[in-house]
Amino acid sequence: MKLPVVLRVLSVFLVIISIFLLTPIVVALYYREYGMIQFFLIPVIANAVTSTVLFWGLRRWGGLSLSIRGGFLFVTLAWLSASASGALPFYLSGTIPSYADAFFETMSGFTTTGASILTEIEGLPYSMLFWRSLTHWLGGMGIVVLTVALFPLLGIGGLQLLKAESPGPSVDKITPRINETAKILWIIYLVLTVLETALLMFGGMNLFDALTHTFGTLATGGFSPKNSSVGFYSSGYIHVVITIFMYLAGVNFILYYRLIRRDTRSIMRNTEFKVYTTILVAATLLIAIDLYGSTYETFAESVRYAGFQAASILTTTGYATADFAAWPSVAKITLFGLMFIGGCAGSTGGGMKVIRIVTVIKQGLNELRYLIYPRGVFRIHLNRRAVRKDTVYVITGMVSLYIAMLLLTSVVVATAGTDILTSFSTALVTLGNIGPGFGLVGPTENYAFYPDYVKWFLSVIMMIGRLEIYTVLVLFSPIFWKD
Amino acid sequence: MKLPVVLRVLSVFLVIISIFLLTPIVVALYYREYGMIQFFLIPVIANAVTSTVLFWGLRRWGGLSLSIRGGFLFVTLAWLSASASGALPFYLSGTIPSYADAFFETMSGFTTTGASILTEIEGLPYSMLFWRSLTHWLGGMGIVVLTVALFPLLGIGGLQLLKAESPGPSVDKITPRINETAKILWIIYLVLTVLETALLMFGGMNLFDALTHTFGTLATGGFSPKNSSVGFYSSGYIHVVITIFMYLAGVNFILYYRLIRRDTRSIMRNTEFKVYTTILVAATLLIAIDLYGSTYETFAESVRYAGFQAASILTTTGYATADFAAWPSVAKITLFGLMFIGGCAGSTGGGMKVIRIVTVIKQGLNELRYLIYPRGVFRIHLNRRAVRKDTVYVITGMVSLYIAMLLLTSVVVATAGTDILTSFSTALVTLGNIGPGFGLVGPTENYAFYPDYVKWFLSVIMMIGRLEIYTVLVLFSPIFWKD
Repeated sequence: MKLPVVLRVLSVFLVIISIFLLTPIVVALYYREYGMIQFFLIPVIANAVTSTVLFWGLRRWGGLSLSIRGGFLFVTLAWLSASASGALPFYLSGTIPSYADAFFETMSGFTTTGASILTEIEGLPYSMLFWRSLTHWLGGMGIVVLTVALFPLLGIGGLQLLKAESPGPSVDKITPRINETAKILWIIYLVLTVLETALLMFGGMNLFDALTHTFGTLATGGFSPKNSSVGFYSSGYIHVVITIFMYLAGVNFILYYRLIRRDTRSIMRNTEFKVYTTILVAATLLIAIDLYGSTYETFAESVRYAGFQAASILTTTGYATADFAAWPSVAKITLFGLMFIGGCAGSTGGGMKVIRIVTVIKQGLNELRYLIYPRGVFRIHLNRRAVRKDTVYVITGMVSLYIAMLLLTSVVVATAGTDILTSFSTALVTLGNIGPGFGLVGPTENYAFYPDYVKWFLSVIMMIGRLEIYTVLVLFSPIFWKD
Repeated sequence: MKLPVVLRVLSVFLVIISIFLLTPIVVALYYREYGMIQFFLIPVIANAVTSTVLFWGLRRWGGLSLSIRGGFLFVTLAWLSASASGALPFYLSGTIPSYADAFFETMSGFTTTGASILTEIEGLPYSMLFWRSLTHWLGGMGIVVLTVALFPLLGIGGLQLLKAESPGPSVDKITPRINETAKILWIIYLVLTVLETALLMFGGMNLFDALTHTFGTLATGGFSPKNSSVGFYSSGYIHVVITIFMYLAGVNFILYYRLIRRDTRSIMRNTEFKVYTTILVAATLLIAIDLYGSTYETFAESVRYAGFQAASILTTTGYATADFAAWPSVAKITLFGLMFIGGCAGSTGGGMKVIRIVTVIKQGLNELRYLIYPRGVFRIHLNRRAVRKDTVYVITGMVSLYIAMLLLTSVVVATAGTDILTSFSTALVTLGNIGPGFGLVGPTENYAFYPDYVKWFLSVIMMIGRLEIYTVLVLFSPIFWKD
């Protein structure tokens, strides 16, 4: 692995992040927050200097083609440096006085976790809130995917990069050229963004609120510029629009491409899509039945709140329209169960992903047949096709490490003195990029109380979760560094 | 599958259970509880009648050889009927006035869960307490294994039966004849029982207390005739003896056979044994460090309490010398983590078993190598030998179903109105056959408050856990009933 090549690619990446760091300046100008502009310019200048030094200083290594290992290292470094420089505006402006807090908030943004250390959001400068929500939008579809889309020159290592960053066990190459695929994904994302923003403005939101909530929705992020999240709005229309778009954000984006191509048959055959929709409908009903009478007067209202929260947790968004910690038992345990699942592969959702859950359970049930016919040959099917054993292996492996990581994270969190529910659900919602959990990290609470070392640790955990365990973990394996 | 053959084998099994149902009569005679004798005789007579009718009524089907499917059905029916008739003495005598409660308590006994619905234990008749603890001892090594040991005539289906009931992914045939293996296992079990009983009596216990606590220890059960469990005894000696024997009970019993054969090399090479010991030592230290200063004055005392509780939870025994629900954060979350693991395969411990956890994590880490060398061939090793892919498949499948079952159980439990921690830990400690959990089922609490339907449901879950998911689940698969 050629480290200089990795650093050169990273320098290109820093330029892209810097371009986006300039966009909040438009917001600052509009809202006359002139004092805030410098805090966006400083990291941009710092990135520009670093970029130039790296790119030219290492030019004798030529090329920008990454090897497999280089790809993994690059993606991890990209996410770390994006968060490190993305945290600077918050820190320098004093919006978030501690750098550990600022880094946590930014990583939470990029990884679309939506866990916040902010206790008072509404008074903050618009430009800062815009940047906070923009990190969601960038991280949702993938900052590296974006780089690949914009820089076809990365060509060779491109697919590997996409695999390293993209959610889900396999990224279908929908077009022969990888940067074309990346471009298509981002265009679909952009269209959905415009659509939701327009619909929210139609419901009475101003452009700023509509845009930031759209970023939080489509990225399955969860940051809201309002203290009480989407609960700030009493409008049923807004709840329903956001519910629908959270659901859409949790669907594999390749299905939208197929929809444009009028390939509805492959959508209808998509196992993951069907299971994802079924889980959401079933969970909504289960929660609604529990809420009806106990929490809300009408069944329609119960369904609306249940659907919003179920979609929010299943897709790993983390928005809230109600304090679900105060809901009755079955509603709460159902949400808790959804925290183990996540969105579809190839969506912006986090977690273990529906496809993995389906695969491991199908595989488990498949073993029942071997008990009865030990000499039989049985395979499991997804999308009406038999799944290769190697694929099942990769998936079960990821699920195992995910759960091991979950328990490990709980123990580290508990060193801060938190109870079991808080520790375990903190692990569950940071690794799964959900955001709010139960106990001290419930929907009306925040992460401010954790000591700095836990915040740093959780920042890494959010990244490990967003990059689906392996991308980061592989860097810790001895084989990675062996020549 | 020939149902009449299954029922005939079941009739033989009922005889064995009945023989053991007679033993508490000795205790009743000794303690002059003459009024209790009838309550043991009634189920024995009922069993005898049922047995005779089944055995002779179905004699024209001849033979007692079970097919594979017949084996699964028999094992499940055996456990159900053992609990159904074993519950009668409690119910008929009014010791446990509700049959749902009595069935729960008995299933909890046989499955070595140790979850109790009794609020006041110490006043109960000795003969009833003896039977309660004896169910542990019988269920620990396996009531069907015992049948196989005593009835070599079951020969053909024997290994399958053993597999269906025995804990762990594979039962090594240590002798060519399966009933010989079963016999050896039971003899080792018996020797350990005599040994622990003697050591506990040496520490000041009377025979009754020593015997019942030994049953609870070696079966990794957890029932104690004392209200405050082993915490009743302040003697450090007794704590240490029980800690050691809990640890020993969690070891694969085949290793003792190897020890007798002086095959120490294969013990030292046993991956599971090493990991099991390491987990226990590490957890003890982690907990002790957290307890030292906060809960106990000296480090030695902290280690003693930490070691007892870690061994109790890891081996799925469930005894307590302290109210660990009142312990600090790290101690609690560590115990919570141990609840996911369990003892070694081939031990009397429940849970997912160390070997399975090791396998799935090794497999997960193994996939890291494929990321770097996609065309490589990497295998995982246990006991210094490569593991067959099929074996890994069976193990990951079981782990997946175990976790799915865990979440499903939590939801059903929550319908009783319990909080997340109570619901989830109830699922964890019943499926894992541990006993006490957290929240409302903590070490100083009991299961009495659950409504009857939850008790029935949990009884089945304890059985599913003890028979390692597949044995029971296979009965629900359509392929099982197809000809």
